[in-house]
Amino acid sequence: MTPDTAVTPSRPSRKTIATTPSPAPFASPHPAWLPDAALDLVRTGTVAVLGTGRADTIRAELDGAPVAPPDRADLVVAVRDAVATAAELGLAGDLTQPPAHGYAVVREAGRTVVLGADDVAALHGFWAVVRERAVARLRGGDADARGGAADAVTTSAPLQPIRVLDHWDNVAVHPVMGQVERGYAGGSIFYAAGEVRADLSRVRAYARLLAATGVDDVCINNVNVHAREAQLLTDDLDGVARIAAELRAHGITTHLAVSFGAPVLLGDLDTADPLDPAVAAWWADAVARVYAAVPDFGGFVVKADSEGQPGPFAYGRTHADGANLLARALAPHGGTLVWRAFVYDHHQDWRDRRTDRARAAHDHFTPLDGEFEPNVVLQVKHGPLDFQVREPVSPVLAAMPRTRVALELQVTQEYTGQQRHVCWLGPWWEEILGFRLDGARTVAQIVAGQDGSNPAGGVAAVSNVGADEFWTGHPLAQANLYAFGRLAWDPTLAATDVLDEWIALTFAAADDAALRRLRDVLHRVMDDSWRRYEGYTAPLGVCFMVNPGDHYGPAVDGYEYSPWGTYHFADRDGIGVDRTRASGTGYTGQYPAPWRDVYESVETCPDELLLFFHHVPYGHVLHSGATVIQHVYDSRADAVEQLTEVEEAWSSLSDLVGGALPAAFDARVRERLAEQRRSAVEWRDQVRSAFFRRSGVPDASGRTIY
Amino acid sequence: MTPDTAVTPSRPSRKTIATTPSPAPFASPHPAWLPDAALDLVRTGTVAVLGTGRADTIRAELDGAPVAPPDRADLVVAVRDAVATAAELGLAGDLTQPPAHGYAVVREAGRTVVLGADDVAALHGFWAVVRERAVARLRGGDADARGGAADAVTTSAPLQPIRVLDHWDNVAVHPVMGQVERGYAGGSIFYAAGEVRADLSRVRAYARLLAATGVDDVCINNVNVHAREAQLLTDDLDGVARIAAELRAHGITTHLAVSFGAPVLLGDLDTADPLDPAVAAWWADAVARVYAAVPDFGGFVVKADSEGQPGPFAYGRTHADGANLLARALAPHGGTLVWRAFVYDHHQDWRDRRTDRARAAHDHFTPLDGEFEPNVVLQVKHGPLDFQVREPVSPVLAAMPRTRVALELQVTQEYTGQQRHVCWLGPWWEEILGFRLDGARTVAQIVAGQDGSNPAGGVAAVSNVGADEFWTGHPLAQANLYAFGRLAWDPTLAATDVLDEWIALTFAAADDAALRRLRDVLHRVMDDSWRRYEGYTAPLGVCFMVNPGDHYGPAVDGYEYSPWGTYHFADRDGIGVDRTRASGTGYTGQYPAPWRDVYESVETCPDELLLFFHHVPYGHVLHSGATVIQHVYDSRADAVEQLTEVEEAWSSLSDLVGGALPAAFDARVRERLAEQRRSAVEWRDQVRSAFFRRSGVPDASGRTIY
Repeated sequence: MTPDTAVTPSRPSRKTIATTPSPAPFASPHPAWLPDAALDLVRTGTVAVLGTGRADTIRAELDGAPVAPPDRADLVVAVRDAVATAAELGLAGDLTQPPAHGYAVVREAGRTVVLGADDVAALHGFWAVVRERAVARLRGGDADARGGAADAVTTSAPLQPIRVLDHWDNVAVHPVMGQVERGYAGGSIFYAAGEVRADLSRVRAYARLLAATGVDDVCINNVNVHAREAQLLTDDLDGVARIAAELRAHGITTHLAVSFGAPVLLGDLDTADPLDPAVAAWWADAVARVYAAVPDFGGFVVKADSEGQPGPFAYGRTHADGANLLARALAPHGGTLVWRAFVYDHHQDWRDRRTDRARAAHDHFTPLDGEFEPNVVLQVKHGPLDFQVREPVSPVLAAMPRTRVALELQVTQEYTGQQRHVCWLGPWWEEILGFRLDGARTVAQIVAGQDGSNPAGGVAAVSNVGADEFWTGHPLAQANLYAFGRLAWDPTLAATDVLDEWIALTFAAADDAALRRLRDVLHRVMDDSWRRYEGYTAPLGVCFMVNPGDHYGPAVDGYEYSPWGTYHFADRDGIGVDRTRASGTGYTGQYPAPWRDVYESVETCPDELLLFFHHVPYGHVLHSGATVIQHVYDSRADAVEQLTEVEEAWSSLSDLVGGALPAAFDARVRERLAEQRRSAVEWRDQVRSAFFRRSGVPDASGRTIY
Repeated sequence: MTPDTAVTPSRPSRKTIATTPSPAPFASPHPAWLPDAALDLVRTGTVAVLGTGRADTIRAELDGAPVAPPDRADLVVAVRDAVATAAELGLAGDLTQPPAHGYAVVREAGRTVVLGADDVAALHGFWAVVRERAVARLRGGDADARGGAADAVTTSAPLQPIRVLDHWDNVAVHPVMGQVERGYAGGSIFYAAGEVRADLSRVRAYARLLAATGVDDVCINNVNVHAREAQLLTDDLDGVARIAAELRAHGITTHLAVSFGAPVLLGDLDTADPLDPAVAAWWADAVARVYAAVPDFGGFVVKADSEGQPGPFAYGRTHADGANLLARALAPHGGTLVWRAFVYDHHQDWRDRRTDRARAAHDHFTPLDGEFEPNVVLQVKHGPLDFQVREPVSPVLAAMPRTRVALELQVTQEYTGQQRHVCWLGPWWEEILGFRLDGARTVAQIVAGQDGSNPAGGVAAVSNVGADEFWTGHPLAQANLYAFGRLAWDPTLAATDVLDEWIALTFAAADDAALRRLRDVLHRVMDDSWRRYEGYTAPLGVCFMVNPGDHYGPAVDGYEYSPWGTYHFADRDGIGVDRTRASGTGYTGQYPAPWRDVYESVETCPDELLLFFHHVPYGHVLHSGATVIQHVYDSRADAVEQLTEVEEAWSSLSDLVGGALPAAFDARVRERLAEQRRSAVEWRDQVRSAFFRRSGVPDASGRTIY
């Protein structure tokens, strides 16, 4: 080591003495999937908007298009009940009845008429027309640009009654978790400097983006409710009402995360016991004040007895007691109580191999099935652990037929590259939503209560949005936000089609040739990005090989001896968690047929989940034909090699930069691709080296190992 | 997992909404090693104090003892130059001349006369009498309580010219490192709420404690100089002067840690280039302002080009250029520039096995030997890494014969239990100070320049003191602070004797029987505590098996793939770092004979450093006769088993609680012993399990492994 090269020279930063930061003014944010060019697709003819409370909102989108009478306008957007006859809209025959909460799009004689079941549905229908025209252009060229020539009536309604984005935003900057817990896109759009922002223009712009996807609800604060944030329920209701007004303009309902301990934390009570009448009275009063400020308030989200948050266990009560307390306070106002099922022992002993965190939600909640009030929704993470890059679907989703159960996804990429890596989550969610958990019904159908055998819950996700210029840190992570809304509305969509939609809208300003190239490159960059991320990170269903704390980089044993219940038990001979009934924790027994047996057997367990369910020797041969250890070696190296193709694909667009591809967008993507490569190489080398050091098995491919 | 037992119930905390904390008023702190009872040992007869600037300080200590003329008083404390003849002090013969910076204690006819070479030395001599009487009582009973009957003259002078405690205190609470970096004893005694404290009474009490040990210098702020702390050099000189006044009362000189980037950070310059005349002028002005405020100011401590701090490398200059810049500014005022040699690449690539952080200080600094100004002291950590529980002595200490080199120890227990574990460091320091680094001279002799073959440096250490009631978190950690001062003054002291001194003073109020029991128990608890800590933590010279960030608990691979240059390369076959010349990094070649060959050979390398210097198979047989892996298993389990004896020994004092053993002292020790056991068990189990999983070798002792 020589002084000139080995030590990083550090120049002093000029005048870096800290001052309290004032909230940064928003740069004009990237338009995401609603650039002007996308709206231009519906401004090509005459328009009419009638009978909807969101009429002004829709008219603003159509600004510049000439208005015509509704029986002649090229594009009409209406609420069904405001229209008496088809003739009023210049249509032949009977007037189509849109489905509940949905819309109909009638194409007749070159005209397009949107009929919403209500005014929010009309707004959704309007955005559907925009989207369809953009996609038609992407796929078919100009011939379809105005919605296709053929007459047709299409209808659409959301499968899920609740489609909510949860924000883990803190009002005050948390000393450890920051302004947005697990947020990778700058500060909060709702809060700055410990208060609700004065300028909420970004909130309104966000609501507009969401309205164009299908999201209906937003919970505006972190489920880990710290002291400052708890006050949103009381002292800050004015601020909540201001946020709600912005969201409402685009049909989004506001929810709050509240602390189960609020009566003690905020009130004058000595207890938060759910069976104490004074506690119930406190909540009833608190809820009444919320509805006085926000008449269309959606309800509460609660994380109780989870990772240190207060809950009913402290009073010897059940989670049904706890949830019902708040549900009863909300019920007279029509509010919903969302209760998270993410309850487990976070003080587990790593020496204890009988306790299995994966079992916890099922063990805790299924005995309570049928005990919840009708306005309680139990929110269940898609996997039994915590948003890992690969987990099996949580069996709890199919285990509570008398309870409204909602599926929780994570748009924020806590364990999937933190919006520094490209990781398009559409394919992962498509798998989850389409997974036939009870052998017959998909997860989407179950949580929607589609066949009537259980009540409807919905879908939820943690948002990935912040005050960042591109909303999501990585510009391509916008597609995840878009996809969540679209799949929440219609979970039968194919991820690849959703990606087409996002591309068609986002790059609506591109000419046809550029748009085709962008589509091709974005699919090459994004289609396999989730599996590629899995490829260079943790293998075969192993979880939590991440740095404790930030959850970003690799740490093979980072959680191995921790109290968090997150182990892989890798030794010199093998790896994985035995969760079988035969010899392990019995977690497989929580699944209905056929999965209880599929996962139980090492022969039938899918490769990608093998180490989640089984502890096997490194020499175990996968269905793929590779040994476990060679798979660990190969997948990591292969995935990094694929990044070269990704980078080359992106670089091939260089002649479009400044034109169809905005320069700032390109620059941000390139910066992130560089970090993705650095991080992916680190993952590859650490994981390969750690398992080589343990197993002693050489890499048959001969690639470098350290 | 059942809900009733598996989840930790969390009750809400009542009204925990955060407010800016006001500085807590100091509780009356524990008197540490200067209880009233210790002073009573010198208040038993008449006293006289004359001719010393610290006369009031000494008289205050003797409050209550009757004053007598100096030729008759039972105890006289005087500065030598203020006394013309022995007769003035009632002594026969010629008046003893105390050594420079030291004192003489003359015992004659039952009287005790302290003669200091200067007034601070007189103060040290006074405390020597207190200490000697306490120890005499501990060892000999009442017969010696007044200093022994036999006439004698003893002299003492400090071996080291600089004996400094560095405080890693931040003025403002650092968002990551807190009020005191690596501080385990509460807030800072100097600062609170981002300012120098208004009430500095604890600083004065601290200075008094230090004066009774032999420490002469204190650097009052963190060497990692953050933006707020940099201002101590300029805007906060009033506060610095107030601190200096408190320290001065007990003979302690004040030093400041400064940022090498200060001319840019605080000034109006665009550069901190050490060869730029404007930079030199800026420093000259800054230093002049410091001396105007604090005329006896000691000097600066600088951490440059180290772990992100600015330094001369940024300007293509050497560390001699950098140090000399500041030294020349200080020289006209008599100030000293302490420059830390802790310079290494903290962005190392773990894949690169040729680069060795242990080499860094030697590689960086030895080429500069002879280039430093005479008032530069190069401060070198005792080991080549960073205060690990076991490291070899740094070869740099003997490698720069034309440079003043100071040894840096760490009283704060960053890697030795963080003042939650009992870890008496006296024996470790005794080993280091007495280590014959060049085969002939001890480390203490080398840094003292004792034989004149190199200039004198001194000793430094990072303090372990905070605003805690017991000063040091763990009450027994007071002994480490005491020992540093004593060994800094006289490095030939045996640690066990220093511990006796500390016990004798601290428990001076105990009756003879209780004092004997306390002595017995404290030796049982403390004597082997450092080796016990090594026993249950990292084995055989392996370093950095700690949690990144807090450095407290175990993480076997916590730093294994990090950029910090801290690896052990454990795989399924073996462990350790090959630092030999023959096949490794060549670090052994930095040592003089005989160590360059002792460490080079696996046959002669001491067991406790084997894995620091060699990578060996788990089956390698140690000199102890055990294999490496069985040593890993046995030592960890044995050390934890020894804690039972420690706890039992402490508990045997229960009848003294509230009497000779203050109840709060006992309660704090018990609380810490419980945490020590919990933590030690965690270390034992994680390290044993991790190495069993890797090696596959069963523990021959049959003790449980996970």
